[in-house]
Amino acid sequence: MTGPDRRAPRYDTVSLLTDYGSTDEFVGVVKSVIRDLAPHVGVIDLTHEIAPYDVRAGSLALARCIGYVPRGVVVAVVDPGVGTARRAVAVEVADGEGVLVGPDNGLLAPAVAMAGGAGRAVELTDPAYHLEAPGPTFAGRDVFAPVAAHLCNGVPLDALGVAVDPALLMPATVPLPRPERDGVVAEVLWVDRFGNCQLNLGPDDLAEHGLTDATLLVEIVSLVDPAAPTVRAVSRARTFAEIGGGVGLVLDAYGMLALCLDRASAARELGLAAGDQVLVRSFDGDRAAAPGTPVRLGRTR
Amino acid sequence: MTGPDRRAPRYDTVSLLTDYGSTDEFVGVVKSVIRDLAPHVGVIDLTHEIAPYDVRAGSLALARCIGYVPRGVVVAVVDPGVGTARRAVAVEVADGEGVLVGPDNGLLAPAVAMAGGAGRAVELTDPAYHLEAPGPTFAGRDVFAPVAAHLCNGVPLDALGVAVDPALLMPATVPLPRPERDGVVAEVLWVDRFGNCQLNLGPDDLAEHGLTDATLLVEIVSLVDPAAPTVRAVSRARTFAEIGGGVGLVLDAYGMLALCLDRASAARELGLAAGDQVLVRSFDGDRAAAPGTPVRLGRTR
Amino acid sequence: MTGPDRRAPRYDTVSLLTDYGSTDEFVGVVKSVIRDLAPHVGVIDLTHEIAPYDVRAGSLALARCIGYVPRGVVVAVVDPGVGTARRAVAVEVADGEGVLVGPDNGLLAPAVAMAGGAGRAVELTDPAYHLEAPGPTFAGRDVFAPVAAHLCNGVPLDALGVAVDPALLMPATVPLPRPERDGVVAEVLWVDRFGNCQLNLGPDDLAEHGLTDATLLVEIVSLVDPAAPTVRAVSRARTFAEIGGGVGLVLDAYGMLALCLDRASAARELGLAAGDQVLVRSFDGDRAAAPGTPVRLGRTR
Repeated sequence: MTGPDRRAPRYDTVSLLTDYGSTDEFVGVVKSVIRDLAPHVGVIDLTHEIAPYDVRAGSLALARCIGYVPRGVVVAVVDPGVGTARRAVAVEVADGEGVLVGPDNGLLAPAVAMAGGAGRAVELTDPAYHLEAPGPTFAGRDVFAPVAAHLCNGVPLDALGVAVDPALLMPATVPLPRPERDGVVAEVLWVDRFGNCQLNLGPDDLAEHGLTDATLLVEIVSLVDPAAPTVRAVSRARTFAEIGGGVGLVLDAYGMLALCLDRASAARELGLAAGDQVLVRSFDGDRAAAPGTPVRLGRTR
Repeated sequence: MTGPDRRAPRYDTVSLLTDYGSTDEFVGVVKSVIRDLAPHVGVIDLTHEIAPYDVRAGSLALARCIGYVPRGVVVAVVDPGVGTARRAVAVEVADGEGVLVGPDNGLLAPAVAMAGGAGRAVELTDPAYHLEAPGPTFAGRDVFAPVAAHLCNGVPLDALGVAVDPALLMPATVPLPRPERDGVVAEVLWVDRFGNCQLNLGPDDLAEHGLTDATLLVEIVSLVDPAAPTVRAVSRARTFAEIGGGVGLVLDAYGMLALCLDRASAARELGLAAGDQVLVRSFDGDRAAAPGTPVRLGRTR
Repeated sequence: MTGPDRRAPRYDTVSLLTDYGSTDEFVGVVKSVIRDLAPHVGVIDLTHEIAPYDVRAGSLALARCIGYVPRGVVVAVVDPGVGTARRAVAVEVADGEGVLVGPDNGLLAPAVAMAGGAGRAVELTDPAYHLEAPGPTFAGRDVFAPVAAHLCNGVPLDALGVAVDPALLMPATVPLPRPERDGVVAEVLWVDRFGNCQLNLGPDDLAEHGLTDATLLVEIVSLVDPAAPTVRAVSRARTFAEIGGGVGLVLDAYGMLALCLDRASAARELGLAAGDQVLVRSFDGDRAAAPGTPVRLGRTR
């Protein structure tokens, strides 16, 4: 490790997103390293409760944050391949207003895209900007945190290692809604603490498929009996309170549609988790489904 | 959204209390917004683990904090009515030493009272001090955080919206102990991480009802068999260690009496949760209850 | 409480480690007190999720952190004896580069040792540097936080109370591996969020006992049937990914050996918790144990 760099400070905020959780001292040690090397820096915890190894969930959370993160360095670590040949990278975005630091495993990709795409990128190959470590399993402490601190201190990006072609960074695969029968198959991108289920579906996607009614149907395939999906009427609602007793389809704070209940968990009510698929289709008056009433569509129909 | 205000900074601390939890990035985004608009501000997390929608628990936690919170802005968000007609407000306390920002649903009321009552108050109606948002469900990010940042930057309270009569802010209902039979019925206000059960009962309340003995009885009505309450002897104790093997009644760090065990959870032992009621009464020598021995008082007595 | 001290600031970082959890506002109040008394100080949360009352787990976590903690004050609170005669202390380390503050119950000892041993130490007996409190159960808020703030403000260590002979501070008992049969009995020191089981065993300990093979055996005694331990082949691995489908013995980020799986929990797979003992021994070709295959060694052999 080099000492604090004498260049003029360049950034004064590091934002962190990891799957480190809070039961251990991992996050505290990462912050200690940053504070030690760059005492002028303020650290923002975006979240540390990404499920262990869940690169996709981490990438989506980071994408939801990135438009709000202040100028500075973002360190993201969900890194099951730590210590292997997967690259550790730093990627400049927004003409250098931000640098994203983390493993090159797709975690950074959606956020980089939302920030306007990658500018310069480097692989973090110069050990002079890392900590020496007894073992290679804690890159957050030994690689990403010191690199972030050095960037804040003014170390130029290209000093950190060899240049990487930004076009060759690991992309992320984001699922797109697809038309099916009389509706569109969407995927649950995220279940939040309140049980709201964000879909990969914006209002325009619904309009595109002619799904403009105030009440729609959602079909959820059960793994127990795939031929008997649960069907629920869902009403478009502007707020949670507006939903009332049923299931609502709410334009959430990120511009996506989410399945929600008022003061209760839609995920629990509907048995949904991130990654699950639902069919959203028009409300068919021929069916006996009243809004909010579950309907079993069995084999016999 | 307006840019950072050029007025002289007025506060440099924002304290946060929410039901946002830590599994999502909600808190991180709120902090990002504050940092972006008011980089000089330090943020203190009071807690983010208020149970979802539990306005009462949030209001009590905030009241426990308020005497320790440093000069500045407090943002509190437990807000099931987000996006509806419920008002978003900012309330000055202590001659402007503090401003409490949040929904006007009773959440702020006990803290405002403990801080000496409301000075001026405004409804946060001027969108110039909010963020534009795709949907109305994340007022913490889009309304409360930017308002707090602007207050710190020196924006005057009355610029944020229309004045509200402080007397018309939503009050909170705090339960009072009531005399019953030979004792007093108290309510569990709070069960903490360690299982200590804070009652709405101070030492003076006990003295007022003549409950001055070193050992008292606590009756807990079971929902399963209301006619057969559990009765436990509880001993007044100054510290957890002093309790020994039984149940103690300890003057807690907030000046209230709490049911506690030594190094174990009184809530689990006694089956208590916040909102439960217990009867505290004098230790009646006629009963066979030895300290620490549970007694079943059935229908046959 | 005295007001902010007018001496020149001495430290600008306080690092916190407690068993306070995050469900309550304990940590937030501790930080509020520090911010109020010493506004220039930055606070680092090492962790607050030490299991309630688990002094040993807290002491080990603190020891894992101490080499990374920046110059300043460390406050550690796992304190079942709060309010009793157990001493509250401040201990200088590294020629005053750091001061550790907390209960004298063994919590600080391993970290003090790793920081080069105790310099001066005092018992925190002067109430002028504490907060007045309704009850004695929240020393983090009323004693340790204000003392830390005053230290940061430049109050000399010996002003805080009576000197304590550092040799008489409560020591910690750290278990040592011991030879047994053809191997060495180790103890699980720590199970982290990912289920990795850190042993009290470094690579040198294995070499010392002639356990230099790339594959070793681990015996775990079951409480259900102590005569039938589970035996697992474990392979030395440099990274989690290198482990593949079996159980790996990985040099962890602290220089200790840990039982790990790739992207899964070794603790769950092996039924291990902190404090459990395992026998590590050489792979005996006579046994039918293939790597990764569990072998039951019953009474009949």
